Amino acid sequence: MHYVKQISSAQNALVKRIGLLMEKSRERKKTGLFVLEGLRELQLALKGGFKLETVLFQPELITERETSKLLEQCEALELVSVSREVYRKLAYRETTEGLIAVARSKTNTLDTFELDSKNPLILVAEAPEKPGNIGALLRTADAANLDGVIIANPKTDLYNPNIIRSSVGCVFTTNIATGSTDEIIAFLKSKKVSIFCAALSASIKYTDADFSGPSALVVGTESTGLSDEWLRQSHQNVIIPMQGEIDSMNVSVSAAIIIFEAKRQRGF
Amino acid sequence: MHYVKQISSAQNALVKRIGLLMEKSRERKKTGLFVLEGLRELQLALKGGFKLETVLFQPELITERETSKLLEQCEALELVSVSREVYRKLAYRETTEGLIAVARSKTNTLDTFELDSKNPLILVAEAPEKPGNIGALLRTADAANLDGVIIANPKTDLYNPNIIRSSVGCVFTTNIATGSTDEIIAFLKSKKVSIFCAALSASIKYTDADFSGPSALVVGTESTGLSDEWLRQSHQNVIIPMQGEIDSMNVSVSAAIIIFEAKRQRGF
Repeated sequence: MHYVKQISSAQNALVKRIGLLMEKSRERKKTGLFVLEGLRELQLALKGGFKLETVLFQPELITERETSKLLEQCEALELVSVSREVYRKLAYRETTEGLIAVARSKTNTLDTFELDSKNPLILVAEAPEKPGNIGALLRTADAANLDGVIIANPKTDLYNPNIIRSSVGCVFTTNIATGSTDEIIAFLKSKKVSIFCAALSASIKYTDADFSGPSALVVGTESTGLSDEWLRQSHQNVIIPMQGEIDSMNVSVSAAIIIFEAKRQRGF
Repeated sequence: MHYVKQISSAQNALVKRIGLLMEKSRERKKTGLFVLEGLRELQLALKGGFKLETVLFQPELITERETSKLLEQCEALELVSVSREVYRKLAYRETTEGLIAVARSKTNTLDTFELDSKNPLILVAEAPEKPGNIGALLRTADAANLDGVIIANPKTDLYNPNIIRSSVGCVFTTNIATGSTDEIIAFLKSKKVSIFCAALSASIKYTDADFSGPSALVVGTESTGLSDEWLRQSHQNVIIPMQGEIDSMNVSVSAAIIIFEAKRQRGF
């Protein structure tokens, strides 16, 4: 049984606190909490072992009984029935499933990064510019069932609402870590994982590289590419041949092309 | 020499007309005009043979001389020096290069769709949901130097500002057409182009398909996939094996993976 209360005012203290958690990375770091929205996102968070603190539901969109059923495996938590007005204020889209949850974040350091496979395939993204790009990368990493994703020098925390939304919740189930470039390079070397940098210079075609061994595919930003630090430590630089008017693709598109070439070489 | 005038009020009739052209597909269709923003976009529009009617420049960001130089190959057109206030009102990002242009759209029908290659590789996208997805597809099509892109049953006109922006101007240089599914299927058959549908059922792996002949790669929407009409006419349905928690990738990512597999088979 979960304790249920009701909130109908957008001025309520909890509603304000949730708004803050959505907006401010600092607030998320300080409290160790974050906010997620939507049914699939909630299910993936539970599957990923995240601990929920509070779940808001809008009874015109989802009943208390349905909400309780979703959460029957959870320990006691606060269930809050919110008015349409409150839901509108907090929800990104009014068409989502009437569910908003406050959950406890995990620490995603290299110490806790699990690498079970003897022959891992990992994606590393250096300082992605936009949360939406991180989300798209996580979605591709999920589809390809990569052994993990590492974000180097992230510009935002992983529980940014845009990352959660654009990853469609994959951020909760992907094996993921963040770290500095130095830390990550040391980690990959200690695990004998070869570094393949996507780079525009001194490179072979990505289809000519051999991704059959333990491999980290490393991508940089669209505007500046990878830092010299990565390029110096590269086992092999690879390039996607481009033949158009503009010399760039979206980072999530480039990464997907290389990831699935590696999958092809490995027989999926 | 271009005639130069100045506008400093956001209430000016031309400024309002440009705002309308940006917002309303109907207005673009009625007038045959559209609006583009940015240096690269302007250069690609000129390269693509688009006729400009009016070019606005913000003199704190780009001088009249630089603007004139950019346009020296153009026929007489109206150059307008606009105030910071006017530029702020119209520009999507204040950091763009101080250039906004009104240009004449082209008709992008299958009648005018040029297919010079004897062995074309074409992308077909059915009713993409978001302008940003069309832009991303065009960017990938440019990088892969596809022979053309066809949008079936488009939900917006091609000169939607979000398409122009997300394509980084590739919409101006890509060989592109729109049409109904029936028209496009008839066109592809008349050109003896094989249809490969990206579909979740009754499919072979995309890496097992043979894209070496004249090929159209057909992708649907993320939510509903391709219509039965396409699936019935498919030479071969292909699937990207997915092994994750969620069974979908962004349409521009899926398309890129299949496009570059075809490029690989064709030796780039």
